Amino acid sequence: MRSDIAVFSGSAHPELAEEICRQLGVPLHPTRISRFANDCLEVQLQANCRERDVFLIQPLVPPVQENLVELLLMLDAARGASAGRLTVVMPHFAYARSDKKDAPRISIGARLVADLMVTAGATRVLAMTLHSPQVHGFFSVPVDHLHALRELAAHFRQYDLSNTVVVSPDLGNAKEAARFARLLGVPVAAGAKERLSDDKVQMSAIIGDVADRDVIVLDDEIARGTTVLELLDLLRKQNVRSVRVACTHGLFADGALDRIGAEPDVLEIVCTNTVPVLHRSPKLRVLSVAPALAEAMRRIHWGESVSALFDAR
Amino acid sequence: MRSDIAVFSGSAHPELAEEICRQLGVPLHPTRISRFANDCLEVQLQANCRERDVFLIQPLVPPVQENLVELLLMLDAARGASAGRLTVVMPHFAYARSDKKDAPRISIGARLVADLMVTAGATRVLAMTLHSPQVHGFFSVPVDHLHALRELAAHFRQYDLSNTVVVSPDLGNAKEAARFARLLGVPVAAGAKERLSDDKVQMSAIIGDVADRDVIVLDDEIARGTTVLELLDLLRKQNVRSVRVACTHGLFADGALDRIGAEPDVLEIVCTNTVPVLHRSPKLRVLSVAPALAEAMRRIHWGESVSALFDAR
Amino acid sequence: MRSDIAVFSGSAHPELAEEICRQLGVPLHPTRISRFANDCLEVQLQANCRERDVFLIQPLVPPVQENLVELLLMLDAARGASAGRLTVVMPHFAYARSDKKDAPRISIGARLVADLMVTAGATRVLAMTLHSPQVHGFFSVPVDHLHALRELAAHFRQYDLSNTVVVSPDLGNAKEAARFARLLGVPVAAGAKERLSDDKVQMSAIIGDVADRDVIVLDDEIARGTTVLELLDLLRKQNVRSVRVACTHGLFADGALDRIGAEPDVLEIVCTNTVPVLHRSPKLRVLSVAPALAEAMRRIHWGESVSALFDAR
Amino acid sequence: MRSDIAVFSGSAHPELAEEICRQLGVPLHPTRISRFANDCLEVQLQANCRERDVFLIQPLVPPVQENLVELLLMLDAARGASAGRLTVVMPHFAYARSDKKDAPRISIGARLVADLMVTAGATRVLAMTLHSPQVHGFFSVPVDHLHALRELAAHFRQYDLSNTVVVSPDLGNAKEAARFARLLGVPVAAGAKERLSDDKVQMSAIIGDVADRDVIVLDDEIARGTTVLELLDLLRKQNVRSVRVACTHGLFADGALDRIGAEPDVLEIVCTNTVPVLHRSPKLRVLSVAPALAEAMRRIHWGESVSALFDAR
Amino acid sequence: MRSDIAVFSGSAHPELAEEICRQLGVPLHPTRISRFANDCLEVQLQANCRERDVFLIQPLVPPVQENLVELLLMLDAARGASAGRLTVVMPHFAYARSDKKDAPRISIGARLVADLMVTAGATRVLAMTLHSPQVHGFFSVPVDHLHALRELAAHFRQYDLSNTVVVSPDLGNAKEAARFARLLGVPVAAGAKERLSDDKVQMSAIIGDVADRDVIVLDDEIARGTTVLELLDLLRKQNVRSVRVACTHGLFADGALDRIGAEPDVLEIVCTNTVPVLHRSPKLRVLSVAPALAEAMRRIHWGESVSALFDAR
Amino acid sequence: MRSDIAVFSGSAHPELAEEICRQLGVPLHPTRISRFANDCLEVQLQANCRERDVFLIQPLVPPVQENLVELLLMLDAARGASAGRLTVVMPHFAYARSDKKDAPRISIGARLVADLMVTAGATRVLAMTLHSPQVHGFFSVPVDHLHALRELAAHFRQYDLSNTVVVSPDLGNAKEAARFARLLGVPVAAGAKERLSDDKVQMSAIIGDVADRDVIVLDDEIARGTTVLELLDLLRKQNVRSVRVACTHGLFADGALDRIGAEPDVLEIVCTNTVPVLHRSPKLRVLSVAPALAEAMRRIHWGESVSALFDAR
Repeated sequence: MRSDIAVFSGSAHPELAEEICRQLGVPLHPTRISRFANDCLEVQLQANCRERDVFLIQPLVPPVQENLVELLLMLDAARGASAGRLTVVMPHFAYARSDKKDAPRISIGARLVADLMVTAGATRVLAMTLHSPQVHGFFSVPVDHLHALRELAAHFRQYDLSNTVVVSPDLGNAKEAARFARLLGVPVAAGAKERLSDDKVQMSAIIGDVADRDVIVLDDEIARGTTVLELLDLLRKQNVRSVRVACTHGLFADGALDRIGAEPDVLEIVCTNTVPVLHRSPKLRVLSVAPALAEAMRRIHWGESVSALFDAR
Repeated sequence: MRSDIAVFSGSAHPELAEEICRQLGVPLHPTRISRFANDCLEVQLQANCRERDVFLIQPLVPPVQENLVELLLMLDAARGASAGRLTVVMPHFAYARSDKKDAPRISIGARLVADLMVTAGATRVLAMTLHSPQVHGFFSVPVDHLHALRELAAHFRQYDLSNTVVVSPDLGNAKEAARFARLLGVPVAAGAKERLSDDKVQMSAIIGDVADRDVIVLDDEIARGTTVLELLDLLRKQNVRSVRVACTHGLFADGALDRIGAEPDVLEIVCTNTVPVLHRSPKLRVLSVAPALAEAMRRIHWGESVSALFDAR
Repeated sequence: MRSDIAVFSGSAHPELAEEICRQLGVPLHPTRISRFANDCLEVQLQANCRERDVFLIQPLVPPVQENLVELLLMLDAARGASAGRLTVVMPHFAYARSDKKDAPRISIGARLVADLMVTAGATRVLAMTLHSPQVHGFFSVPVDHLHALRELAAHFRQYDLSNTVVVSPDLGNAKEAARFARLLGVPVAAGAKERLSDDKVQMSAIIGDVADRDVIVLDDEIARGTTVLELLDLLRKQNVRSVRVACTHGLFADGALDRIGAEPDVLEIVCTNTVPVLHRSPKLRVLSVAPALAEAMRRIHWGESVSALFDAR
Repeated sequence: MRSDIAVFSGSAHPELAEEICRQLGVPLHPTRISRFANDCLEVQLQANCRERDVFLIQPLVPPVQENLVELLLMLDAARGASAGRLTVVMPHFAYARSDKKDAPRISIGARLVADLMVTAGATRVLAMTLHSPQVHGFFSVPVDHLHALRELAAHFRQYDLSNTVVVSPDLGNAKEAARFARLLGVPVAAGAKERLSDDKVQMSAIIGDVADRDVIVLDDEIARGTTVLELLDLLRKQNVRSVRVACTHGLFADGALDRIGAEPDVLEIVCTNTVPVLHRSPKLRVLSVAPALAEAMRRIHWGESVSALFDAR
Repeated sequence: MRSDIAVFSGSAHPELAEEICRQLGVPLHPTRISRFANDCLEVQLQANCRERDVFLIQPLVPPVQENLVELLLMLDAARGASAGRLTVVMPHFAYARSDKKDAPRISIGARLVADLMVTAGATRVLAMTLHSPQVHGFFSVPVDHLHALRELAAHFRQYDLSNTVVVSPDLGNAKEAARFARLLGVPVAAGAKERLSDDKVQMSAIIGDVADRDVIVLDDEIARGTTVLELLDLLRKQNVRSVRVACTHGLFADGALDRIGAEPDVLEIVCTNTVPVLHRSPKLRVLSVAPALAEAMRRIHWGESVSALFDAR
Repeated sequence: MRSDIAVFSGSAHPELAEEICRQLGVPLHPTRISRFANDCLEVQLQANCRERDVFLIQPLVPPVQENLVELLLMLDAARGASAGRLTVVMPHFAYARSDKKDAPRISIGARLVADLMVTAGATRVLAMTLHSPQVHGFFSVPVDHLHALRELAAHFRQYDLSNTVVVSPDLGNAKEAARFARLLGVPVAAGAKERLSDDKVQMSAIIGDVADRDVIVLDDEIARGTTVLELLDLLRKQNVRSVRVACTHGLFADGALDRIGAEPDVLEIVCTNTVPVLHRSPKLRVLSVAPALAEAMRRIHWGESVSALFDAR
């Protein structure tokens, strides 16, 4: 007999946590989060954790630092309350982009945050679409790394894909785009981007054949959307027939959703609910990853193979 | 021959860092802090750290979570850049108030944050007026724990203290108040407070003799000031002659400075610059702890006794 | 189905261990403790520990160093014997008084001993009335921190409490005394003590109203009793009506019990059996904490909330 | 005054170690390596390590497992002999290719080996051209990560590059190829490869313009050379003018050098001596990275910035 | 209810693993071991490990370094695959001979390898006939240390032992030989050996009475057999009646089996299958330790006492 | 330039510490050791430790537990006081005898105590004549392991050794006795002892030739002396000519010195001052190891080879 499951949510994305718990048929236990006059946080998990199989759901979305420290406090509280096992469900791990030391005297933030979570008590992580697959190796605890390609593919299969090409905005994400294209049975192309700074990108060329095609742009995350917008310029020069934009993590910062949605040849913008969708657009379609996360949590809880579900074709 | 000293400041309190460096006669090296579109931070230390004796100055002041994560990234960056020794100079450690588990399933935040700093690379901490002396023991690395009583005492010695009593707003700080009273050669009293919640306090009585006295109220930190204001009510009922309010950490949240300053019998409000003073009041007097911190850093760097300086009478 | 419970006792307090096991309805497994000619100890746990939920009962009472090292050897033996979980039941943690660095170049003994226990294999601690609540945070493993206020309150409720006041011998314990007073529905007062050295205390004043009252003196621990005796002098000067002395940990070193018992106005001395009571006095009343410890162990074993039992009103 | 430097080599690549020491003007201390009858290794460092700044030079080349365990034994021996600092100089880290979990229930070998080195005593690593930049983050100790692009670029600048394009065999290495192309002032292209298994690769297309160009194929490592050979097929179909093949790590397994050298349009094969070059070919040109490694070691020893040297343009 | 058991074997000794699994009545799950072109290994455990009680069977036999790294990769893979418990079954731990620092600047290889196994994820070890009993203490995780004396004794009881003496080839193994002699009810003697180097041994004398006796030579391991052969010379000089040679670990390197077998007065050579027996001899008799290992694994899995079985007389 | 050396002594053996400091020409800094009423210890190091090269001298002699905890407190105090390096000088490590698990559910005390010292802050250990050489491997920090054979040999060279044999009381110490015999140029013999319990030993035989010889009995430690006394019985039966008894650690518990001294054929009892010699006997000769320890400390401090001094012939 397994110990009971106990699911808590931080303040980052309670809607997703609610939906996951509905899928699982378990209650979402309340979490009391207080802010003292000196701006320090205190988190109280409002249900017994003792020897429970505890899951803490918290994507690292803005305000990232607040949500990270809140998560660390939740982890420490659950450990101190004798949780039997302590899994962080982190559908979006924002710091995963800080995965290399491309300038001297900077932190590899993804490794640091992974270590902080373990220090605070995490014994396992359930993540989704990490920015690079190597980030998995930054964790010293077991990680189950899901992706949302099946959800995205299911959505796009409603369309006629006979003339479609999947386009990755840059070379770094091209392997993921190729995997997605294979799921859809279509070819792949990629932008060759020179990133000059965080908010200024010089796009040079599209490698691969896109002319006269229906394009599905696939990225792992859309934040300011600059990359996608510059890609759209290039695609237009190659006379693509239509564009749909897809990503797992729809952050849409600084009016990105409006700006992409304002492009007339963009027919649709598709993302998942790994992060709370704060903006609205008639072109936006949000797919739910709650069933996938819930099924993974169920399998983790019962000791069933997660890879059997998610990696199989 | 010692390795060189290298001092950096986070964004919490650059003015204090500048003043410390002027005292030390060393440059404050620049720190580049970037925020990505997804709200993640990246910190780059802008000077060589290799084998240097690195000091990172960062009090935990609002926005506390931002400043904490920034500090952790600075620590990791300095460690990755091969810093020889890595001292956190933390004049105000806000999470020190979370030093016990007074409710089930909460974190002892001070211990957690101490562990996070060590995980990120801290090999030593220089702190000031920790909320309780036990917080020292939460660190697994050496801590030099200064206080500002000498700076405060030097200020108050300009007055006629013949009729003065030092009053601690609650019993928890009474030992520190007694130590301060001994420095001034005056008696001590204390409020007996029942704290019902974070922002609502029921004061019951003053223990000790304050009638017709010039009172110096001493607390470690003033945040919303509720405690001090309720103490003032009680002091007035005992017909004190005058009131001066003193603390090390002048956070003054939610208009606390204005509200305390508006009390006509409060002659003066004294704090130090362990935290940036964001508000102005004609009654406010800010004392600098930069000389004390600089001298401690100099002694740490040269391997001289810090206790010899600060604990001796 | 839970693994079996296995309870062992060191040599510090086998009577308490026996009583706890009777409460739990489980056997107290024997422990063989040998001392070699070179004064080294060897401990053999005399029952299978493999995958068991092992509890080791050992208060840190004199000879403290012997009992501490014995406990560490028991922990290591149980870990090496593949204990499934390893809980130290430490009704009295003597080193908790060493909780701060009030002189240069001393150890914070409580933190050190907490770390030693974890190094030796402890995965959880059950403690009672720690000298300060912050000591909880010295442990890197979960701690269940009980107190004996309910046992003490149940005892004193047999008396007419209409004229009673609870008096804490010093300010440090005043919060605990206030909590106890609230349980009894009576007011609280406190001595303002200047501790000059370990065995010489200069008492200055009583803060709070005690004249003509029935006094219950409450301290966490009575060792040499000097503090209590000096408090009695002060109480007498304020013409208290009667005195009862209560504490959790009745160490009674150096004839303390006789000396306090010899005071004619002391009607009763009440302590618990967290430590073995080695001395006898007609005024002494020893309350058992075995039921409370046994219930906490039962709940720890079955994964039930311990806070639900002990912290609720 | 710095402590003395002490350099040792394992059996993987003593020639490189000799050359580095000549550059540094320090002796290469002898290492005695014995193999017992039961196949266990014993390593004895043949010079005093006490408080020395010790460097152990060992690329992970075949036999990889022998060289890895030998290195771990050297590390442990140096630590046990009280080395002051312990830097692994690993010009080729073969396990860096195992940087992600692309199948269930496999190890992320690069992270594991990084942890093993730290367990054995490494306090710092000097690496060259890691398979992916994220591997840097697998280490919990500081890493100086050099590349050989400057050495390679210096070599190719002897040619007329006006019609040249740098081609990466796959998308994963494309960013590095782009960096190299920028150093040479030429454009970049990349193969879009589908890796089906370790020794069978299905190449689909070249993205970027290569027709009628002089091609420099750049990869981080050439092992069996299958990827390069398939790329050559594709390049020929696009009528490239000439091909030169360049890599940092020239492993040339299973006759790879002969097979690539046998292609008539391959004018030159260029690699560095990060690994011992075991095969000969008239088309092969081996560049030395010893000066770069020696300069990095000199800067590490003297606490000078390594990034200032290698990352600056 | 226990979690399921999951047994895997590395490539060191699959026959023993098969036999153990037959004894246990559980399947031996397949392990896929790949070698990349750059000589790195990849191990994939081919069955679900999640929350399973995982046992990895791998004696450290030649090629020792290959088998060690393979084991470390298996451990890391199982940990990353969320194994519930992770026991290394290591019937022969070759590095156990490197148990002391008998020359400066060497590694104590046994301690290092023990630490490497724990770093890679081992939570428990099942070992057999470690070279010295102290090696047990090199592990920071629980060890069950079996010996094969009962299997060996059962074999020799078939003979008339009335004139038999057990002879240890050196003093280091004499205690184990005495224990074996006691099991057989016969006296013990020992060679006094001066080991000059690994492959050259100067035997000085036999201490104890062997003249005219039937000798059973007992060693823990026979590798090159030099020690045994020199002992035979000495025994002959004392006119022993017959010789049988017994050991737990029959490595038989460099033709040892042939050379010992060629001695006419050696009637029999007995070893166990802790290591794969690669050589054949008409005098060789191999006893199986699979039943003992299987029974220990069964008891470990079910939390029954292992010492009760193996240490009792 | 090295940092200063700072030497402190616990209460175990201040005379030896004084003598070492005289040899080194440095002061022995005072240590204040207090015992509180509850039997807890507090240690204050009375000189600045900051960045110093700190040596703590403390053999583990009776009262062992007191001295061990005192040492742990000293270590923690020195670490907290920012000691630069922290070497435990432990001339006698009593727990080294607990080096194996020869009964179920006991601790391997030597490993545990080694881990406790590292937890408390030790970064290096200087030990002498550990009970078995494997104990060296129990430490995770560098150990310099001296022996006193040269001091003992120098003493015995004053005698005519032409008819002398060195006899080890048991087989376990025989290798050390052989090493000592080689230093003296004499043969070696050993007792074959069956240890039935700690204080009852059944001696069976002497292996080796002792008849008519002058015997030097050599053991690492003499505690109750039972082994030596039983050996004397056996030696007498073989008509030895004379007996001298030598050991490194002369604990002489329970009147051992008197009992051995009372044997008429024992001419002399020789030990060293690794432990305080508490008993007197006209036959006792105590050799000082202070010069050897001081020289080792000097070499450790200056980074010179310790093995060069002590292991060379």
